[in-house]
Amino acid sequence: MASHAISRYPVPNLEQLPDDIRARILAVQEKAGFVPNVFLTLAHRPAEFRAFFAYHDALMEKEGALTKAEREMIVVATSGANDCLYCIVAHGAILRIYAKSPVLADQVAANYRKADITSRQKAMLAFALKVALKSSEIVDDDFATLAAHGFSEEDAWDIGAIAAFFALSNRMANLIGMRPNDEFQLLGRVPKHK
Amino acid sequence: MASHAISRYPVPNLEQLPDDIRARILAVQEKAGFVPNVFLTLAHRPAEFRAFFAYHDALMEKEGALTKAEREMIVVATSGANDCLYCIVAHGAILRIYAKSPVLADQVAANYRKADITSRQKAMLAFALKVALKSSEIVDDDFATLAAHGFSEEDAWDIGAIAAFFALSNRMANLIGMRPNDEFQLLGRVPKHK
Amino acid sequence: MASHAISRYPVPNLEQLPDDIRARILAVQEKAGFVPNVFLTLAHRPAEFRAFFAYHDALMEKEGALTKAEREMIVVATSGANDCLYCIVAHGAILRIYAKSPVLADQVAANYRKADITSRQKAMLAFALKVALKSSEIVDDDFATLAAHGFSEEDAWDIGAIAAFFALSNRMANLIGMRPNDEFQLLGRVPKHK
Amino acid sequence: MASHAISRYPVPNLEQLPDDIRARILAVQEKAGFVPNVFLTLAHRPAEFRAFFAYHDALMEKEGALTKAEREMIVVATSGANDCLYCIVAHGAILRIYAKSPVLADQVAANYRKADITSRQKAMLAFALKVALKSSEIVDDDFATLAAHGFSEEDAWDIGAIAAFFALSNRMANLIGMRPNDEFQLLGRVPKHK
Amino acid sequence: MASHAISRYPVPNLEQLPDDIRARILAVQEKAGFVPNVFLTLAHRPAEFRAFFAYHDALMEKEGALTKAEREMIVVATSGANDCLYCIVAHGAILRIYAKSPVLADQVAANYRKADITSRQKAMLAFALKVALKSSEIVDDDFATLAAHGFSEEDAWDIGAIAAFFALSNRMANLIGMRPNDEFQLLGRVPKHK
Amino acid sequence: MASHAISRYPVPNLEQLPDDIRARILAVQEKAGFVPNVFLTLAHRPAEFRAFFAYHDALMEKEGALTKAEREMIVVATSGANDCLYCIVAHGAILRIYAKSPVLADQVAANYRKADITSRQKAMLAFALKVALKSSEIVDDDFATLAAHGFSEEDAWDIGAIAAFFALSNRMANLIGMRPNDEFQLLGRVPKHK
Repeated sequence: MASHAISRYPVPNLEQLPDDIRARILAVQEKAGFVPNVFLTLAHRPAEFRAFFAYHDALMEKEGALTKAEREMIVVATSGANDCLYCIVAHGAILRIYAKSPVLADQVAANYRKADITSRQKAMLAFALKVALKSSEIVDDDFATLAAHGFSEEDAWDIGAIAAFFALSNRMANLIGMRPNDEFQLLGRVPKHK
Repeated sequence: MASHAISRYPVPNLEQLPDDIRARILAVQEKAGFVPNVFLTLAHRPAEFRAFFAYHDALMEKEGALTKAEREMIVVATSGANDCLYCIVAHGAILRIYAKSPVLADQVAANYRKADITSRQKAMLAFALKVALKSSEIVDDDFATLAAHGFSEEDAWDIGAIAAFFALSNRMANLIGMRPNDEFQLLGRVPKHK
Repeated sequence: MASHAISRYPVPNLEQLPDDIRARILAVQEKAGFVPNVFLTLAHRPAEFRAFFAYHDALMEKEGALTKAEREMIVVATSGANDCLYCIVAHGAILRIYAKSPVLADQVAANYRKADITSRQKAMLAFALKVALKSSEIVDDDFATLAAHGFSEEDAWDIGAIAAFFALSNRMANLIGMRPNDEFQLLGRVPKHK
Repeated sequence: MASHAISRYPVPNLEQLPDDIRARILAVQEKAGFVPNVFLTLAHRPAEFRAFFAYHDALMEKEGALTKAEREMIVVATSGANDCLYCIVAHGAILRIYAKSPVLADQVAANYRKADITSRQKAMLAFALKVALKSSEIVDDDFATLAAHGFSEEDAWDIGAIAAFFALSNRMANLIGMRPNDEFQLLGRVPKHK
Repeated sequence: MASHAISRYPVPNLEQLPDDIRARILAVQEKAGFVPNVFLTLAHRPAEFRAFFAYHDALMEKEGALTKAEREMIVVATSGANDCLYCIVAHGAILRIYAKSPVLADQVAANYRKADITSRQKAMLAFALKVALKSSEIVDDDFATLAAHGFSEEDAWDIGAIAAFFALSNRMANLIGMRPNDEFQLLGRVPKHK
Repeated sequence: MASHAISRYPVPNLEQLPDDIRARILAVQEKAGFVPNVFLTLAHRPAEFRAFFAYHDALMEKEGALTKAEREMIVVATSGANDCLYCIVAHGAILRIYAKSPVLADQVAANYRKADITSRQKAMLAFALKVALKSSEIVDDDFATLAAHGFSEEDAWDIGAIAAFFALSNRMANLIGMRPNDEFQLLGRVPKHK
C-alpha cells in the first residue's frame, strides 16, 4: 500500500517545514508512533495548518462536560454522514481507544441510532448531525431537547462547534484525497500487550 | 431593531476581552466604521475566535490567482446554499464593494448560473458548491474542468478551502443565531459621496 | 447594467402590445416610477400575461385575514426556497415597503425561522413552504397547526394558493431568465425624503 | 364511493355560481358527460377559478408544435413527480384518449424513460421535469438539447410553461384534497362501442 | 403493443424451462388467464426465479393479521415511491381485485395519505415507506406507533419484510425494463359479468 | 458485549430449528468458527430464511465474470449507502479476506471513488449504487458505460441483482436491529499465523 499517494497535493518533507510545524509533527510522532497523514498533507499550507490545529485543539482539548470519547463520537458520526474516509478511519481509531470499545466506531459511523450508547449520547449526536446536515433548521426546540438530557447551552456550543469544524475538515480531506494511514486499522481493536 | 439579540449566547464587552482580541476588534471598527457582529459574538470563546480569524485571513488575504471579489463570490454562493443569513448579508455587502456592483451579491446568493459573471467564474462556483454540498463526489474530472478554465491545482485548493471554511462559518452562525448588523444593508448599494 | 437582457425571449415594445396590456403596464409605471420586468417579459405571450396577472391580483389583492406584508412574506420565503432571483429581489422590495423594515426581506429569503416575525407568522411560512416543497405530504395536522395560531380554513387556502401561484411564477422566471430591475435594490432600504 | 368528499372546502351548487362559471361547467358536462371535480372544487373561489382556466386554456389549447397528446404527457409526468392524485388520474384519462393508448398514461406517470414514446418526447419530458423539480438549474445547454430534437425556443416556453402551470395546479389539488371522479378510471382504457 | 419487448434480456420459451418453473408458470396461466411478465422475464435465471417466488410466497401467502388487500397496499405504495412501473400496474390490479375497489390502487400509488383507507392502514403504509426509503432511521418509536394501531411485533416484521422484498423486486424490474402485461389495465376496474 | 441483543425479535435455539436450517448453520459454524448473526436472527422465520439464503447463494456463488471480491465490493458499497451496520461490518470482513487487503472495505463503505480499485471496478460500483439509490433512472447509457469497461449484459444483471438483493437485506437488518458479531472486527485485518 506504500505506493498510494496520501494527497493529490505535494507533501512536504519535515526538513522543509517551519520550525513550529515540524516540532508539532515530531511531538505527534513521538506520542502516536507514526505521523497521521492529516499533519503531513495539510502542512503543504503552513498558515492554514496552524489555524486548523489551533481550532482543533480549542474544541477537542478544552475543558467541559463532554468526555473525550463523546467528542470523538461527534466527529465519527458527522464524518460518516459526510462520507469522509480519512476522518472515519482516523477518528474511529481514536474513539475505539477512548471508549475502550473495539466496535463502537463502526456503529457510530454507520448509524448512531443502533449504537451501544446512552439516550443522552444519542440526543447529542442527533443535534450534531442537524448542525452537519441542515443547520439552518436549528430552532429553540433543539436546544430544549438537549437541555432535557442535561446539556447546558455551553455544551450545545461544544457539540455544534465540533460538528461545524469537521464540516470543514471533512471537506478538506475529500478535496485533497487525504488517505488514512494503514496504522489506524488495528488501533483499539486488539487488547494491548503488557 | 436595536433590541434584537445578535447571538443566543452572551456577548462580551470590549473591556472584558483579552488584549489581542480587543485590538483586532478596534482595528476593524476603525476601518469599517462599525463592528461586524461576527467579531463580537465569536469573542465569547477567545481560543476559537483566534483560530477562526487566523483561518479566515489565511484564506481570504493570501496571495493567489483569485481576486478578492472572486473569493467573496465563493462565500456568498455557498452561504446561500447553506441558508446562512449572516454570511449572505455581511459578505454580500463586501462583494458589492469589491465587485463595484450593487446587484451581483443578490444574484450570486440566489443562483450563480444567472449572475453577471464570466463562464470561468461560473466554473469556479460550481466547484465551490460541490465542495459545499457533496464533497465526497469530487473526482479528477472536476479538477480538469477547472483547469480548462485556467485554474491551477493551487487555485482549486483555494476555491475548495474557502468553501470548506464557510461550511464551518455558516454552521456556527446558524448555531448561535448570529444576526447581521443593519449597517450592511446599504453598503455597496449606493454611490459614495465625495 | 443596461446591456443585460431581461429575458431570453423577445421583449415587446409597448406600441406592439394589445391595448389592455399596454394600459396595465402604463398604470404600473405611473405608480411605481418604472416598469418591473415581469410585465415586459411576460407580455411576450398576451394570453398568458392576462391570466397570470388576473391570478396574481385575485390572490394578492383580495380581502382576508392576511396583511399585505404577510402575503409578501409568503412570496419571498417560497421564492427563496425555489432560488428564484427575480421574485426574491422584486418581492423583497415590496415586503420591505409593506413591513416598513429594511432587513426583513433578506431574513425571510434566507431563513424565516430566524426572522423578526411572530410565531404565528412562522407557522404561516412553515405551511407555505410545505405547499411549495412537498405538497403531497399535507395532512389534517397541518391545518390544525394553523388553526392553533388563529388561521381559518379560508386563510389556509390563501396561504397555500399564494405558495402555489409562486411555484408557477418562480418556474416561469427561472425558465426565461427574468432579470430584476436595478431599481428594486434600494426600495425600502432608505428612508423616504419629505 | 359517492360519500367521499371531493374537497376539504365547500363545493358550491351550480345555481349559486356566477353565470360565466356555471356556463363553463355546463359546457364541460355537455361534452364530457360529467363534471370533472376540478371545476366544482375550484369554483369555491370564482376569481381564482377564472384565472386558473384562462391560464389552462392559454397553454393547452394554443397553436404550436406540441400535439395535444404531448401536452398531456407533460402534465402526467410532472403530476407524477409531484404525487398529485387528481392530475395523474384526470389527465391520465385525457392522455389515453389523445394518444389512443390504454397503457401510456401509467407509463408516463411512473417513469417516462421506459414509456412507449419517441426520444424527442423523452427529451421534452426531461426538460419539463427539470422545470418542475429544479428550475433554478436550467441553463443554455438544456435549450440546446431541446433544439437538437427539433424544438424551437417557443416550444421550450410551451413545455416549461405547462410544467410551471401544473406546479401550481398540483399544489392546489394537494392543498384542498381534490378527489378525481370515478368516471376517469375507464376513460380510454376500453374501445368505444359503435 | 405486442411488439414491445417485455425485458431487455432474453425471454425463455416455456419448453426450454426446467420442469418446476414451467409447471409454476402454467399454473399461474391457468388461474389468471395469462402469464404475468414477471414470471417469463425472471425465468431467464432459474435459480434466482426459484428464490424470488419462494420469498414472495413466504411473505404474501403466509398467515397473519394483515389482509391480502393490505399486503398489496404495501406493495403498491412502496412501488410508487420507487417509480416501478411493473409493480404499480400489476399489483395495482391485484389490489383492486382484493379490495373490491376500482380506484384504491391509483390512490395508494400516488399518495396514501389521501386514500380511502383507515388510519390504521395509513400507519401501516407510513412504516412501510420508512423501511422502503430510509430504513436506517427506524427506531423504537416507529414500532410503538404501529402498536398504538394494534399491530404486533410480528405484524411489524410482515410489513417491513414486504417493503424490503419489493425494494428488491422494484430494482430488478427497473433494471431489466420489465413491461407490465396489457391485461392488467382493466382487471378490477370493471364489474365481472355473471 | 455479550449482553447486547442481536435482534429485536426472538432468536431461536439451534435445537428448535428445522433440520435443514440447523444443518446450514452448523456448516457455517464449522467453516467460519462462529455463527454470523444473520443466520440466527433470520431463522426466526424459517420460510423466509430459506428463500433469503437461496437467493443469496444464487447471486454470490454463481459462475460469472465478477470475482468474489468484486461481488463483496458491491455489497459493501451499497450497504454503506443504506447505512446498514450489519452488512458493512460482516461483508466488510469478507471483502478484506477475498481482496487480501486490510483497508479496502473501509474505503468502499465510505467512498468508492477514492478506493484502491480499478476504473472498471469504479464503473461497476457506480452502476450498483444507481440500482441501489435511483433504479428508475437507469437507461441504456448506463449499460453502454458498463460495456465500455468490458462488462456484458449478463454481468450487468449480476451487478444489479446483487445491489437489489442487498436492498432487501439492508432493510431487513435495519428493521430487526441485526447486530454484527464482534468476531468480524479483526477478520482480514491481521495476517494469519502459520
